Amino acid sequence: MQEMQFYMPVPLHCESGCVLAYSHKLAQLGGSCLIVTGRTGARASGALDDVQTALQLQGIEYTVFDEIEENPLVSTCHRAGRAARELGAEFIVAIGGGSALDAGKAVAVYAANSDLGGEEIYDLDWPLPALPCALVPTTAGTSSELDQTAVLTIDALGVKKSVGRADMFPALALVDAKYTYSLPYRATVSTAVDAFSHCAESYFAQNADTISRMFALQGSALLWPSLTTLAGLSPFIEPEQIDTTLRDDISAGCTLAGFSLGRCGTCFPHPLGYLLTEGYAIPHGSATGVFLPAFLQRARRYERGLFDRFLEVVGAPSLAALSATLQKLCPVQVKMDPQQIEDYRPRLQNVKNFARTPGGYTDSDALDLLRQLFL
Amino acid sequence: MQEMQFYMPVPLHCESGCVLAYSHKLAQLGGSCLIVTGRTGARASGALDDVQTALQLQGIEYTVFDEIEENPLVSTCHRAGRAARELGAEFIVAIGGGSALDAGKAVAVYAANSDLGGEEIYDLDWPLPALPCALVPTTAGTSSELDQTAVLTIDALGVKKSVGRADMFPALALVDAKYTYSLPYRATVSTAVDAFSHCAESYFAQNADTISRMFALQGSALLWPSLTTLAGLSPFIEPEQIDTTLRDDISAGCTLAGFSLGRCGTCFPHPLGYLLTEGYAIPHGSATGVFLPAFLQRARRYERGLFDRFLEVVGAPSLAALSATLQKLCPVQVKMDPQQIEDYRPRLQNVKNFARTPGGYTDSDALDLLRQLFL
Repeated sequence: MQEMQFYMPVPLHCESGCVLAYSHKLAQLGGSCLIVTGRTGARASGALDDVQTALQLQGIEYTVFDEIEENPLVSTCHRAGRAARELGAEFIVAIGGGSALDAGKAVAVYAANSDLGGEEIYDLDWPLPALPCALVPTTAGTSSELDQTAVLTIDALGVKKSVGRADMFPALALVDAKYTYSLPYRATVSTAVDAFSHCAESYFAQNADTISRMFALQGSALLWPSLTTLAGLSPFIEPEQIDTTLRDDISAGCTLAGFSLGRCGTCFPHPLGYLLTEGYAIPHGSATGVFLPAFLQRARRYERGLFDRFLEVVGAPSLAALSATLQKLCPVQVKMDPQQIEDYRPRLQNVKNFARTPGGYTDSDALDLLRQLFL
Repeated sequence: MQEMQFYMPVPLHCESGCVLAYSHKLAQLGGSCLIVTGRTGARASGALDDVQTALQLQGIEYTVFDEIEENPLVSTCHRAGRAARELGAEFIVAIGGGSALDAGKAVAVYAANSDLGGEEIYDLDWPLPALPCALVPTTAGTSSELDQTAVLTIDALGVKKSVGRADMFPALALVDAKYTYSLPYRATVSTAVDAFSHCAESYFAQNADTISRMFALQGSALLWPSLTTLAGLSPFIEPEQIDTTLRDDISAGCTLAGFSLGRCGTCFPHPLGYLLTEGYAIPHGSATGVFLPAFLQRARRYERGLFDRFLEVVGAPSLAALSATLQKLCPVQVKMDPQQIEDYRPRLQNVKNFARTPGGYTDSDALDLLRQLFL
């Protein structure tokens, strides 16, 4: 029989105006909250205004913590958790891109557990369940609103590491594509490439099943044509000149991607992308996209049937066409030296994402690819 | 933007041997349980044996309540709830077709709420959350394991009525297609038609969205070819002569149907089918199938684009071919008289399933159809 597994307990509303339309669902989470955001995106998108209006409508007290940086530090989340506790917050609302949303989930853990040290979150044994957390994305990339995972940066090491436990699943996801309308071109591209890579990596992952692949394909069918359109635009286009129908398609595609990502995880492009983000400050999606052509090549070699179906659904003529568009969208100039590449080896051993890759993937495969791309 | 809504919090495992493989998940629900089943199906399928083995493996105490009838009575569920309470059961395991699974969900409510009278369940205001409930289907038809709904029969009226609240969502669904292998031909047909009608009705429902339609189409693509194969078999075929690959496809199709059904509900065939089940003892799926050709005709008239896509995905040449196969599978001989039909009118007014039908649907439309089919 066909094996299928499914668990995605997040109540999801994707709808224009959903933050106000579902404000009563915020009220079900408690009478006071901490709003967790970065410095700019939540305000610029209009999402922070809408959330504040919704909370006021429901008589919910709130305080804004707007200090989440990109690739959020463990220490920042820990500090926000203490702030939430001191304010007596009963739930968290996180607004922003993947950084703010991931931070929100971690803040909800720290807020509920006063004795938990910053990095102790990685031990996964905090005693009290995380506070409920409502997430409002302002980018269409990470699908963080649909999973229990937070990717944080460990302060002392400068290394990204993910953490997740069942009580970190969001209590509510409110997705309104209009919050992405003010996103600049480059951020739009990077986040859309991230969403597409979630579809592609999880579609070909060895632990995928009928249900997860259905989401991955449907997401890809929206995201790939959007990426080809983006590739044809000038990088200097103003945010408001980017077609909102295109924005809406990317938002819907990203939501669909989240179901497949949450079930299967990613393959080798994601962990390799972390190296470029940490070492070269390349945005997460673009950093991942650099490794996607090699991944798709491998997928074609080891999963030809799935690959042909993928090409058909996204409407791309060939692997070469997919690769050329990705290279245009993610024009990364990185140089590494041989010793530097060899020094990555310990970190690239026994990576669970590698094991899911079609045909398997080893640390040596990864180092070969780094040499090929960056020497 | 595309509106999408999703909420399906049930942890689902569809896998050969899943009852034993996930016995640790039963242990997470408590240390003692009441097993709720009908008289025969749970034993004949082998599912009861597997569940007992799994519970013993985990040291969980259990008692079997095997008195659930087809179209379960409110009074029977109420009685089983008292039994669960008296035994100190911490959770319920229901095994069987839709009747036993629906009963299990109601039993979990009664068990937790000692003061709740039988029909008071329909007021939806019981004070304590239902006990957790693990469901193990032995038919592939209702997808009851994926929703919070129980369809019970009100003793005094002999009328089927559904009840559902968020705490009735199953805590665990364990689907092993092999439990359907011993199901006789006619029950296999009726339950598979039920699953197909869930796909068809929810696919065309006016409240459907991209995600629900994706599940409905994928389910239909497995179920329709299976139904055409079943239509070509002798009704006197022995259960073990029915191809297990066919059984597996029906099981997977039914699981996929459940996602769409739970999100959108059904249209007019389902409530009209109840009339045939209550008045003529026609099994639920076959009773619904009688009304599917008229429904598909309406779908073609009001949603031509969706209809053409549906035909393409199921691989049927035409509406006429779909209808002919359904009529062969559901050969119902029912005669009604004009007054009897008119007497159904009050019950067919303001039915929410009617409102979801493409083009809308009124009590007068329904009476016209009954006259056309049964006068």
